[in-house]
Amino acid sequence: MTTIDTLVSARWIITVNDDNEILENHSLAIQNGSIIDILATQEANNKYQARQSHQLDGHALVPGFINSHTHAAMNLYRGLADDLPLMEWLQEHIWPAEQQHTNQEFVKTGTQLAIAEMLRSGTTCFNDMYFFPDETAKTANEIGIRACVGLIVIDFPTVWANDADEYIHKGLQLHDQLRHQSLVTTAFAPHAPYTVSDAPLQKILTLSEELDIPVHMHIHETIGEIDDAVAASGKRPLQRLSELGAISPKLIAVHMTQLQQAEIDLLATDACHVIHCPESNQKLASGLCPVQTLIDAGINVALGTDGAASNNDLDMLSEMRSAALLGKIATMDAQAVNASTALRMATINGAKALGLDTITGSLEVGKAADITAIQLDSIETQPLYDPISQIVYAAGREQVTNVWVAGKQLLNNRKLSNIDEKTLLADVAQWQQRVSTI
Amino acid sequence: MTTIDTLVSARWIITVNDDNEILENHSLAIQNGSIIDILATQEANNKYQARQSHQLDGHALVPGFINSHTHAAMNLYRGLADDLPLMEWLQEHIWPAEQQHTNQEFVKTGTQLAIAEMLRSGTTCFNDMYFFPDETAKTANEIGIRACVGLIVIDFPTVWANDADEYIHKGLQLHDQLRHQSLVTTAFAPHAPYTVSDAPLQKILTLSEELDIPVHMHIHETIGEIDDAVAASGKRPLQRLSELGAISPKLIAVHMTQLQQAEIDLLATDACHVIHCPESNQKLASGLCPVQTLIDAGINVALGTDGAASNNDLDMLSEMRSAALLGKIATMDAQAVNASTALRMATINGAKALGLDTITGSLEVGKAADITAIQLDSIETQPLYDPISQIVYAAGREQVTNVWVAGKQLLNNRKLSNIDEKTLLADVAQWQQRVSTI
Repeated sequence: MTTIDTLVSARWIITVNDDNEILENHSLAIQNGSIIDILATQEANNKYQARQSHQLDGHALVPGFINSHTHAAMNLYRGLADDLPLMEWLQEHIWPAEQQHTNQEFVKTGTQLAIAEMLRSGTTCFNDMYFFPDETAKTANEIGIRACVGLIVIDFPTVWANDADEYIHKGLQLHDQLRHQSLVTTAFAPHAPYTVSDAPLQKILTLSEELDIPVHMHIHETIGEIDDAVAASGKRPLQRLSELGAISPKLIAVHMTQLQQAEIDLLATDACHVIHCPESNQKLASGLCPVQTLIDAGINVALGTDGAASNNDLDMLSEMRSAALLGKIATMDAQAVNASTALRMATINGAKALGLDTITGSLEVGKAADITAIQLDSIETQPLYDPISQIVYAAGREQVTNVWVAGKQLLNNRKLSNIDEKTLLADVAQWQQRVSTI
Repeated sequence: MTTIDTLVSARWIITVNDDNEILENHSLAIQNGSIIDILATQEANNKYQARQSHQLDGHALVPGFINSHTHAAMNLYRGLADDLPLMEWLQEHIWPAEQQHTNQEFVKTGTQLAIAEMLRSGTTCFNDMYFFPDETAKTANEIGIRACVGLIVIDFPTVWANDADEYIHKGLQLHDQLRHQSLVTTAFAPHAPYTVSDAPLQKILTLSEELDIPVHMHIHETIGEIDDAVAASGKRPLQRLSELGAISPKLIAVHMTQLQQAEIDLLATDACHVIHCPESNQKLASGLCPVQTLIDAGINVALGTDGAASNNDLDMLSEMRSAALLGKIATMDAQAVNASTALRMATINGAKALGLDTITGSLEVGKAADITAIQLDSIETQPLYDPISQIVYAAGREQVTNVWVAGKQLLNNRKLSNIDEKTLLADVAQWQQRVSTI
């Protein structure tokens, strides 16, 4: 018998490997944070002596979800301004609130709340874009969740920096600080084509090449963004970005609800990644991303919740369902974005977009033990003819029972390991009071 | 002090009355199944001595949700065939399965499962359409949930009847049996324009007038339905129904994803009710119901989950969210189908459609105590700037803690009162095995 750290056995292991293999009554053997073996539970019990052993009958194990686009700290603005279009929502509600309230402490509490919510719904990695990314990185590290922290850049001054150069400078400093972290990586995060001009974008593209990190940007979110750009410059934003050399496998292009065929061809040829945010795109009436068309063109499409202020949750189970449902309406094809595709978007495709697919995104030997256990034997997911169907179309976040990141158990029978819920909720209540009394 | 049956006190009471009043720190006084008083909790504690008293801090009380279109027993086909268009799904999967498996026992277990799921997500009343409606009525009555049971009619033979006359005859018998039931009412349920011919429809319309019960029907669900009708008869189904005199305040028209302006005018003039099923319409790629346009035209629009085989859950919280989100995309207006509208669709509008709005659908003195308590002080719904926003855009079914129907508590701290979960799940497992081995 070999002694290992952890053995997790379950009714189903949904690997999300290249063959979409589903294993029944199998186990994951975990040592030093990594999956070192996947084998039948009966064999596993003979072969391994585990310090921690979990027998999860009626459960499916899936790769921990990757939320490929969010603004974690904005959880503190959840429900502050609903039922408004993007620009009115941003300019009249969110930006003024941010100018008045967002600071280091705000980002700390907001990010803790977001991480608590994400772990409780099975997310083990998030791709963030917000002010005070140093605080986001610190909070993620302390709790032990995987994150790709956006080094935000905007032309105009905010609470975080005064001009593009300062944003970039502070970003580089943070990137340097995080170099030796295993859980937290970085991406440049120029906010959007309409908020970042050519000079800083060129600088970012050069640095992204040099440092080998992705560029994470909102692009073609609404028709208004495109109309304004065309009116001002005669160019659609994607054309401008293409001329700047931004369309590449390093680009994480978020939203993309407005796409012409030639643009889809360009994205495919230049192998950039698209992040689909179906709930945010609906809530802000931004438009329909043609997900299945993009996938058919060979483009890697992953899934994000966007921030809680425009969703209003960070629940990747419900986001998968929304992606599967909306994807059918977007193409008027009931076979589009099937359950298996939605699950890949929420896991391995996100890992690919963040450049983390050798580390996470599927349950395979050699990858980190980033694992989510979902209980499927309750009323809401019975009977069960297909576990992936149940997960995408019927399971709720309350059925996520256990979550591991790099082998560390962060959710244990629905209880968070590294977050004190009472203290967190008390801190959140204080922010609610401050934000309410604008 | 007056002695009463039950006093339920909560942080918020969201009345869904005509003024959309939200009361803070108020109580509902319940006697003989009805709400007899709504008053400040402090006053209530001085005025009433209750046999059962519930102090629900951090909770909102809402009217129990009304699921205005479902096929409860189809819960046993949950996830049997996903990612398929309506006619292929019906003709190649659902109808063959029904022919082989659906019987009285199937409907009993399936309906129990559906009711368990509905109560656990805050639904207190459902409008059903399925075979063996006698069994559905019996099961609803035994558990104590409110239901409007559809007296199904189809031209062709099924497990329930051999021809339209037999369907109607069996329906009338059931209507007669249920005359003195307070919880279970009936509606005629001719399946769809493409499955019911003129003669039985005329008979149904005459009987519906005479007996004063609604007519519940799938109409204009897909473009295919309309194309086929136009090809066969030169008429769109709504035109045919209008000529038959079917468009009236008694008509509960389900789906309605394909509507021309003249048809919307007709529906408004003749005051029929539309039931919107956003998740089913997306899953089967049926189309987009222009909900806000219908509401602006003065049409009463309520909300349904459809059956679990095309959704795949019966969760009205998630259905409200889907309606609010999809409603914005359908009209490309972020202000369309706001949170408050979605909540009305899921409660009072459903009661109006079913002709039950003097009995249920809002929390008002004189109405039945059909109440759902939702806990809002957990991580997923904090901070809280607006309780209706939290319920529609962020709350999950697991936050439904207590449910009362006609004053009887059917869910108590997440535990079902009148359903043995273990026995139910064992019965469901047996059906799963039978259906799996087609």
